Amino acid sequence: MDQDFMNRFMPRIHDVLFRDEDHWRSHAYQVAIHSTRMCNLGFVVRGYGVLEVNGNSYELGPGCFYQISPPGSRMKFSTDEADPLLYIAVHFDYRLVQWEGMDMSSKESGSAIPMPHMLALDAVSEVEEQFRRLHQLWNGKQPGYEWRSRILLMELLDGIERKQAAPSLAVLRAEEAIRKAMEHIHAHYKQPVNRDQMARNCSMSVSYFALLFKKIAGYSYVNYVHKVRMDKAKILLRSGLAPISEVAFEVGYQDPLYFSKLFSREVGLSPREYRKG
Amino acid sequence: MDQDFMNRFMPRIHDVLFRDEDHWRSHAYQVAIHSTRMCNLGFVVRGYGVLEVNGNSYELGPGCFYQISPPGSRMKFSTDEADPLLYIAVHFDYRLVQWEGMDMSSKESGSAIPMPHMLALDAVSEVEEQFRRLHQLWNGKQPGYEWRSRILLMELLDGIERKQAAPSLAVLRAEEAIRKAMEHIHAHYKQPVNRDQMARNCSMSVSYFALLFKKIAGYSYVNYVHKVRMDKAKILLRSGLAPISEVAFEVGYQDPLYFSKLFSREVGLSPREYRKG
Repeated sequence: MDQDFMNRFMPRIHDVLFRDEDHWRSHAYQVAIHSTRMCNLGFVVRGYGVLEVNGNSYELGPGCFYQISPPGSRMKFSTDEADPLLYIAVHFDYRLVQWEGMDMSSKESGSAIPMPHMLALDAVSEVEEQFRRLHQLWNGKQPGYEWRSRILLMELLDGIERKQAAPSLAVLRAEEAIRKAMEHIHAHYKQPVNRDQMARNCSMSVSYFALLFKKIAGYSYVNYVHKVRMDKAKILLRSGLAPISEVAFEVGYQDPLYFSKLFSREVGLSPREYRKG
Repeated sequence: MDQDFMNRFMPRIHDVLFRDEDHWRSHAYQVAIHSTRMCNLGFVVRGYGVLEVNGNSYELGPGCFYQISPPGSRMKFSTDEADPLLYIAVHFDYRLVQWEGMDMSSKESGSAIPMPHMLALDAVSEVEEQFRRLHQLWNGKQPGYEWRSRILLMELLDGIERKQAAPSLAVLRAEEAIRKAMEHIHAHYKQPVNRDQMARNCSMSVSYFALLFKKIAGYSYVNYVHKVRMDKAKILLRSGLAPISEVAFEVGYQDPLYFSKLFSREVGLSPREYRKG
């Protein structure tokens, strides 16, 4: 899952339902929504059917995960009368949260959840178990079920892509290269290789490298360098008494004013204030 | 932990540090902050010392949890030179998030995190393990560490109070009574006993009952009744074709307009829109 999305994802669950034969019978084995009002994701436990989202068709069967987003999508479920789809569905909406300095804001995303509309999962047991737990947790309504369900939904979303059928070797290699690039930044944060050079080192186009880096690290390459430096600076500020200018230099900035500006923008406190706790 | 707080809690972690002998040596075994800038919570692994928060003193030793909030607190750590405090500290700030209909807003809380400033924990191993995991997760900076650390911090906060030395029998009985009241609402949501009668049934004053109910359920008694009804209504709306007025009546409202108004305010969609998905 896109880590930048996960960092900012703040869902509100509306319901967690088990769709059974009764549901299909009462809907004549077909449900169509012209314009959805919220996000819907689910897991097929048994049966067969077809999901259409904005004109694309996906065949569903046991072990399939689906998601229908963003709100405003056109969708249609239809199922086999002889072997109707039994599935667990979660309806929710969400905001993306953003911190700037000391301010937090949130906005509607308007775009789809960054994952496929359908995935036929290989190892189903764990995801099915998570969906069943979510269904139980939500409908059990024990104290704390709301925030616990939120956490479970996040873990579920994050885990699903990793559980799908093995990705291609090319994708695995590309991801490994990004991880190496992240490690390089950690080891050489004072003066890491610049982005375009790094893309070349990874044998990727700059645009693909940039896209993949953001997806995996959750930050653009340049922002990730800043972030790692700020994290190092935080530790130095907290654990020693070195002057700010020395901390700035230590983490790769020649200009302590520039460092202080960046730090204040990211953290919401100046380095001096941060040190004071 | 207060469930209403947990439902709305949106933290941003700044750093997770291990405070060791070097730290104390360089600070002459004493750290004082006139006005803190963020929240601080931690767990003492070894050593002894004293924490002062806004004029109150707490003795710290192995197995102690502490928290210093809200920002703006006056605090002082001092430790024993012979056996200095070794502890894991998390610095963070947070906002409380609120949904109203389809809008999400967030605000600074300004008040302290609703838990004691210090707790000497009985069964330390699990909390200590959680703190160590958080330290490792945060400083390992693997993809996804930010939202995962956020989740771990939430679980940690929620778990700590339950892990403290056994609460008094009176507290356990009161909590059990609240749980029974919640179950009563679930079983009789169409017409539950009113709050004041319920407080009497529980042999509590109305104000204590109201306070404890909100803490455990995360909602006031009246709002919890509405919430349970709305949840039942959501299921009815999604799973059948009964007219709205029948759904309203089914969940305890004589007046379908009043029901629709409440539903729209809580969910952000009218019952009719909700049904359409």
